[in-house]
Amino acid sequence: MTKKNRIAVIGASGYAGAELVRLIAGHPQVSLNLLTSRQYAGKSYAAVFPSLIGCIDLQCELFSSPESIQKADIFFLALPHKASMSVAAPLINAGKKVIDLSADFRFNHLDQYETYYQPHEEPELLKQSVYGLCEFYKDQISSAQLIGNPGCYPTSILLPLMPLLKEQLIEPIGIIADSKSGVSGAGRSPSLGTHYCEVNEGFKAYKIAEHRHAPEMNENLSIAAGTDVHILFVPHLVPMTRGIVSTLYVRCCPNIDEMKIIDCLSSTYENSPFIRVLPKGLFPDASHVRGTNYCDIGVKYLADQNSCVIVSAIDNLIKGAAGQAIQNMNIMMGFSETDGIDMIPFPV
Amino acid sequence: MTKKNRIAVIGASGYAGAELVRLIAGHPQVSLNLLTSRQYAGKSYAAVFPSLIGCIDLQCELFSSPESIQKADIFFLALPHKASMSVAAPLINAGKKVIDLSADFRFNHLDQYETYYQPHEEPELLKQSVYGLCEFYKDQISSAQLIGNPGCYPTSILLPLMPLLKEQLIEPIGIIADSKSGVSGAGRSPSLGTHYCEVNEGFKAYKIAEHRHAPEMNENLSIAAGTDVHILFVPHLVPMTRGIVSTLYVRCCPNIDEMKIIDCLSSTYENSPFIRVLPKGLFPDASHVRGTNYCDIGVKYLADQNSCVIVSAIDNLIKGAAGQAIQNMNIMMGFSETDGIDMIPFPV
Amino acid sequence: MTKKNRIAVIGASGYAGAELVRLIAGHPQVSLNLLTSRQYAGKSYAAVFPSLIGCIDLQCELFSSPESIQKADIFFLALPHKASMSVAAPLINAGKKVIDLSADFRFNHLDQYETYYQPHEEPELLKQSVYGLCEFYKDQISSAQLIGNPGCYPTSILLPLMPLLKEQLIEPIGIIADSKSGVSGAGRSPSLGTHYCEVNEGFKAYKIAEHRHAPEMNENLSIAAGTDVHILFVPHLVPMTRGIVSTLYVRCCPNIDEMKIIDCLSSTYENSPFIRVLPKGLFPDASHVRGTNYCDIGVKYLADQNSCVIVSAIDNLIKGAAGQAIQNMNIMMGFSETDGIDMIPFPV
Amino acid sequence: MTKKNRIAVIGASGYAGAELVRLIAGHPQVSLNLLTSRQYAGKSYAAVFPSLIGCIDLQCELFSSPESIQKADIFFLALPHKASMSVAAPLINAGKKVIDLSADFRFNHLDQYETYYQPHEEPELLKQSVYGLCEFYKDQISSAQLIGNPGCYPTSILLPLMPLLKEQLIEPIGIIADSKSGVSGAGRSPSLGTHYCEVNEGFKAYKIAEHRHAPEMNENLSIAAGTDVHILFVPHLVPMTRGIVSTLYVRCCPNIDEMKIIDCLSSTYENSPFIRVLPKGLFPDASHVRGTNYCDIGVKYLADQNSCVIVSAIDNLIKGAAGQAIQNMNIMMGFSETDGIDMIPFPV
Repeated sequence: MTKKNRIAVIGASGYAGAELVRLIAGHPQVSLNLLTSRQYAGKSYAAVFPSLIGCIDLQCELFSSPESIQKADIFFLALPHKASMSVAAPLINAGKKVIDLSADFRFNHLDQYETYYQPHEEPELLKQSVYGLCEFYKDQISSAQLIGNPGCYPTSILLPLMPLLKEQLIEPIGIIADSKSGVSGAGRSPSLGTHYCEVNEGFKAYKIAEHRHAPEMNENLSIAAGTDVHILFVPHLVPMTRGIVSTLYVRCCPNIDEMKIIDCLSSTYENSPFIRVLPKGLFPDASHVRGTNYCDIGVKYLADQNSCVIVSAIDNLIKGAAGQAIQNMNIMMGFSETDGIDMIPFPV
Repeated sequence: MTKKNRIAVIGASGYAGAELVRLIAGHPQVSLNLLTSRQYAGKSYAAVFPSLIGCIDLQCELFSSPESIQKADIFFLALPHKASMSVAAPLINAGKKVIDLSADFRFNHLDQYETYYQPHEEPELLKQSVYGLCEFYKDQISSAQLIGNPGCYPTSILLPLMPLLKEQLIEPIGIIADSKSGVSGAGRSPSLGTHYCEVNEGFKAYKIAEHRHAPEMNENLSIAAGTDVHILFVPHLVPMTRGIVSTLYVRCCPNIDEMKIIDCLSSTYENSPFIRVLPKGLFPDASHVRGTNYCDIGVKYLADQNSCVIVSAIDNLIKGAAGQAIQNMNIMMGFSETDGIDMIPFPV
Repeated sequence: MTKKNRIAVIGASGYAGAELVRLIAGHPQVSLNLLTSRQYAGKSYAAVFPSLIGCIDLQCELFSSPESIQKADIFFLALPHKASMSVAAPLINAGKKVIDLSADFRFNHLDQYETYYQPHEEPELLKQSVYGLCEFYKDQISSAQLIGNPGCYPTSILLPLMPLLKEQLIEPIGIIADSKSGVSGAGRSPSLGTHYCEVNEGFKAYKIAEHRHAPEMNENLSIAAGTDVHILFVPHLVPMTRGIVSTLYVRCCPNIDEMKIIDCLSSTYENSPFIRVLPKGLFPDASHVRGTNYCDIGVKYLADQNSCVIVSAIDNLIKGAAGQAIQNMNIMMGFSETDGIDMIPFPV
Repeated sequence: MTKKNRIAVIGASGYAGAELVRLIAGHPQVSLNLLTSRQYAGKSYAAVFPSLIGCIDLQCELFSSPESIQKADIFFLALPHKASMSVAAPLINAGKKVIDLSADFRFNHLDQYETYYQPHEEPELLKQSVYGLCEFYKDQISSAQLIGNPGCYPTSILLPLMPLLKEQLIEPIGIIADSKSGVSGAGRSPSLGTHYCEVNEGFKAYKIAEHRHAPEMNENLSIAAGTDVHILFVPHLVPMTRGIVSTLYVRCCPNIDEMKIIDCLSSTYENSPFIRVLPKGLFPDASHVRGTNYCDIGVKYLADQNSCVIVSAIDNLIKGAAGQAIQNMNIMMGFSETDGIDMIPFPV
């Protein structure tokens, strides 16, 4: 047996980091070798996530160059925005593969990033990074050294819309994305907004048309459409742990019908193991993709309005974060695309 | 002390019926005198809803004419569609006040009802019935004998939209209502769709652009707009017991801004004790209205698109059903509009 | 109309404080006049609890002597342990009625308090305080100036057990209390332990035989039994917002049977409006008392083991905190015992 | 590659059946070949469990002898009690391996089964069946043809208690099991008791000291203890989908302490890959084992009472049903014990 590639998860104490750890631990081609956490350095990882007692016996370390760099071949960065960019630079210089789950390497246009986030300290790296939406940028990903892993909301919105814009089945204007996310999307740091009693038996919209995932979507939708796209994006918080459902309202181009929409999506994703375009009349449910890397898509065409309602569902921590990151690694490394992420959905 | 008006709840074994019973039991002006249920006739009501042991000591009876008719002055019908119309007729003939929570008396246009439901057996009664959207039809309600109590989804959508259409601040075309409801809206009859494990940790759209509440909305929105309105209505199921949040996407008329929208709503509802138009920057949460008769409304104007996102929240069993029915009774009987439904929201 | 008693809630920004505010706002005999919060001083109360917009228009103030003292006649202290005792002293000296929801005035024995909490700074006040378990200490409460309002777990355990110990129907040894609480019992301050994702779809025991509510229970159970009682108390966390269910395992004295147990409880609580002793074969559910001041009690006698399983349920924020505090006020002030807390349970 | 063993799931439309299907589909040594369901015969399995679209493409069939018998080598029966026994007979006669998830083959003593269930139609089969508590009866399982897979509650209670009774560290009398289960344990058939709104935000005990899992526990506890054991078993319903937590109250034999208890459990389970005996001071949480075949056990010794609180947690659908059934198959077939069930716990 050949030696397995060694993996590091930098920033392993959040939910995305922990989901990465779980998936890597079950991956047939790689082995976990380094976990870092500023907050928990020196503690065993299973003390931070007690569900992992007996499963993971690594300790949390501080990331320090150059020692940490030598401990792995592939680095997943599950750090907050801005923290990633400075960590990525020495890793890239050392020839490591880097998959970054923050927003730091998701943009093609520096100005977009700087408008919505902060000044970028590694603009050259940003240029060489590839946006890790696996189903669309597979070729670039396969030869990339640095991946900007997509945001959870953008994944749920880009996968259904990009083929339809590209094939000019829907209009590039007037697109509305009404998205609903489980609470794990807010991260593991305690706050009043994630307090059980504040979320349970509640439902609300937040950051209406102000969420920073919108420019990330717009950039990629515009590429697909070949023209500027500005969608109206309204996220909501659902009292559940995992899952994103996006309900998309789009205007159809002339002479379109439901089967043309479904056929476009089906043929686009014919060889994509993680996209399930549902048959006419069926629609996604967050619970149907929970614990998996699937993105489910359902379509309802409204003839009288020549418009379309498209619904998508993903597990925000898997296809929306850690699972897609593993998929990116699989593509970069030439593994089977489904290695380590071929989970079958739970019945409940 | 004057003798209290006697109340009957016909069809008391569902959630709306039970919520009526609870609210009536705490109402200062009326007293509960008759509860009917086909399924539970002969059983004590507290055996059907064990939370009410020691609070309600009536038995469930079968509704039978003329005995049942003599037992009350005001009748709330919490029956399925179609069952209501035949029960209503003898009550109306006997001079009783009737508030019907089904769809049977909600429509102005017979053909609308018959298109979306079934043939109507009491078209004359339908003509004389008043749609019980209290904030809009108060005058007619105050002199009505028969009320068609609005549906839960329509209540959450009409209250924010009707003033804006009436004042021509928003366009009557292209309106989208993306609504999210708790599970109690599906009623108390067990089904796979309301099984705990099928709902919990899930989220889905259903009856996309096919829900029978849409024509009820369209009829009233058209009255407000003075022109035909056809909205696109997509309901979703949220893993929570109570609450509806509707996210409404509307196109604004020229020269509108956020304050004009908020001011229109605020002045319309200045004397409406149950409508809370939230200050700029605040948005509703289902948990903020749970257990109350409030409808909360928040507004976000998008200058670059000259459109508006309006979010509303109600408790579907109260403002969306039993509470609004009590409010209708209060108006019909000349009680204070808030009698028996002036609950203060829970902190959690 | 006589002038209403003015109420202050000191420490109004936690869940118990907010529940007090809600209940006081709906109470017919008193009016809310002062809300204090160190964390939110200067903010409107409705900004802290947005569900209360339009319902409560007081601002949060800093508690400062003597200004704050003059603003109310009755003071509810919803402060952390230790913070209460120093606030209580000047209030008592000024002749105010004080109902303290912390542990500071719950104990008869100074040493018990100091063993499980910290040195007591007002031991003389502790002596004059009355333990506010309304159903047992009503006479003392009616003439008290200072009440130590019982803990939530103790309330759920003392109400079923004290009559049985007093009447010597059950043995004072070997009592086990396996209690299950909703998350609001942990308070509003964010922590990993109350994070939605950490609680949801989980269930765990905590502080096994180490919870500080045990000595409070033991002191009162011993009074009832006339001998030392030490129960084994194991609390658990349930993924729900409100409610405590306690499953109590007791050994029966000779010649006891189920009806003797039920009869003892029924006759003890014959005139207690908030205790519902359920008929043989029925058992409590947290959802049946949610939003109310009820304590439900069900009994199962096991002849072959001459032992008994008793199950009780309360709403931890109402009968376990704010509701019982109001009940104490009602008794102290000579109001009807049910004023402001006579809520009828929700069907769901 | 050798030909994979063909698997049948008889009664595949319930939650245990569906969980079996999911686990078998991911198992490296076997392949799914037959799914039967009386209710859904003729429908595709993915129409019954839409989360499985694209994952399982079998149709539900009616079980019919002898055709169905020839379609598989190993049969899992996920049928209701009583239905299993008649299906098992022809399978056993045909030389098939059978793992039955009902109670029909769990008992050593015919009279126990017949007292708590109904007359047994296959008493000879009952005699040859082996109780599939893997960690205790591994040798018999490895050579068995027919397995009675343990109940969910018994699994959570027997695993912590049997070693302690066998080693005489705890007394065989006075054992109390206070268990709490998620809703999936009630099965997939809709009923008022599993309606989302009836369960959500509630918590209750049920079948107090009357649950049919108690005799199954008593039989095995008595074998371990070498004397008759009768535990007091009180199950409760938790508003969550998966998981059982059992809080066990036991009296210790003389000269016992916490480490002796922990050491006994640790050494018993030294080579058991699915039992995690937690270090002193740590206790299980249902969420830590969700989605896995683990049984977690934590111990708290109470010196002053010479008694012990032991807490265990399992996923009721996995270690409590389908996972343990796969584990039994692995042992019977000589596969690695962890094949197909070596899932790593979710962080949330």
